[in-house]
Amino acid sequence: MSDAPIFDQEFRSRLRDLVAWRRDVRRFRRDALAPEQIGRLLDLACLAPSVGLSQPWRFVLVESAERRAAVRADFARCNAAALSAQAPERRGLYARLKLAGLDDAPCQLAVFADPAGRQGGGLGRHTMPETGEYSAVMAAHTLWLAARAEGIGMGWVSILDPAAVAAILDVPREWRLIGYFCLGYPEEADDTPALERAGWERRRPPADFVLRR
Amino acid sequence: MSDAPIFDQEFRSRLRDLVAWRRDVRRFRRDALAPEQIGRLLDLACLAPSVGLSQPWRFVLVESAERRAAVRADFARCNAAALSAQAPERRGLYARLKLAGLDDAPCQLAVFADPAGRQGGGLGRHTMPETGEYSAVMAAHTLWLAARAEGIGMGWVSILDPAAVAAILDVPREWRLIGYFCLGYPEEADDTPALERAGWERRRPPADFVLRR
Repeated sequence: MSDAPIFDQEFRSRLRDLVAWRRDVRRFRRDALAPEQIGRLLDLACLAPSVGLSQPWRFVLVESAERRAAVRADFARCNAAALSAQAPERRGLYARLKLAGLDDAPCQLAVFADPAGRQGGGLGRHTMPETGEYSAVMAAHTLWLAARAEGIGMGWVSILDPAAVAAILDVPREWRLIGYFCLGYPEEADDTPALERAGWERRRPPADFVLRR
Repeated sequence: MSDAPIFDQEFRSRLRDLVAWRRDVRRFRRDALAPEQIGRLLDLACLAPSVGLSQPWRFVLVESAERRAAVRADFARCNAAALSAQAPERRGLYARLKLAGLDDAPCQLAVFADPAGRQGGGLGRHTMPETGEYSAVMAAHTLWLAARAEGIGMGWVSILDPAAVAAILDVPREWRLIGYFCLGYPEEADDTPALERAGWERRRPPADFVLRR
């Protein structure tokens, strides 16, 4: 098609910067995001790949103070349990990590996958139904990159009980929680993950993850 | 940090183009990809988000003609079963869809998640262990976008038996197949999904997928 874009070296270099400087943000400024900004991010997320063009993603903007407090309480419960499950020698370090920006992030977004939606006619999901959830993951990841390109940080909170979150948000029973996300302007930018800076873990080189067969 | 990149409107506009023109490609030219190109894509994929910085993604470059033929045969089996499972009135349309580029794509890549890896110390996976798989999905999606930015198309083949593919590729028993991907130069570029062009499904507007709570 004649108007297909061609991406040049300059764009690829900036795309690499975007991927390298995307972070899981846990420290947010409280400045609100504009509704049209959030709308733009959701628009782009809905262009993510989806199995059979099923678009199984469901986005829940969590605005109620009561519901936010309930999610915050669930995080506190789950994080206390996760702390106890850590090996004793790691517990002190774990306790010092900041693992969620739920107190400050001005925007909170839960992403679900709806496995019961009829869109897509089941194509591609016969042997691997989990591709529905994977599609919702790619929508969340698209939103993450789009946010970073606007200078907005995003953090993925997975230290939650999915059933509790679904109940708090009063969503259809069959929806499956993919992740709970905090969005807002980050307090700082960095190209090194917070967990690496905190001494929790370090990244391995790509060669460690590639096999040939 | 002073050298943090700032992304401008021009970049965001091109990023939107990238997302809009990424396709699930099933028609490939047979021209080989350069090894250093594939290496660049894998490098970028390894900067994807991962729960607890666990980097649970495992990439298998499938180069053996025998293994490729075995994957192709598994696809044929699974696709025949999926065709039979379609509603009678959709079966003719399904049969006409081209659902994989396994015959022509010069590069084939299986992506797995390793749930047993110790990297990351289990952080963030206590209540939602599936975030390990989701991390591998985001690595695959990062690779997809990076590929498109190089003019390379990628197609996700999910019409496969995951256990059969794992056996064909002789990977550790605990690895979980995320997807099997074809890569190569696409025969055409388009901003509309092939399934939409073929009349299988159409995309819905973002407003259909957003709730407020």
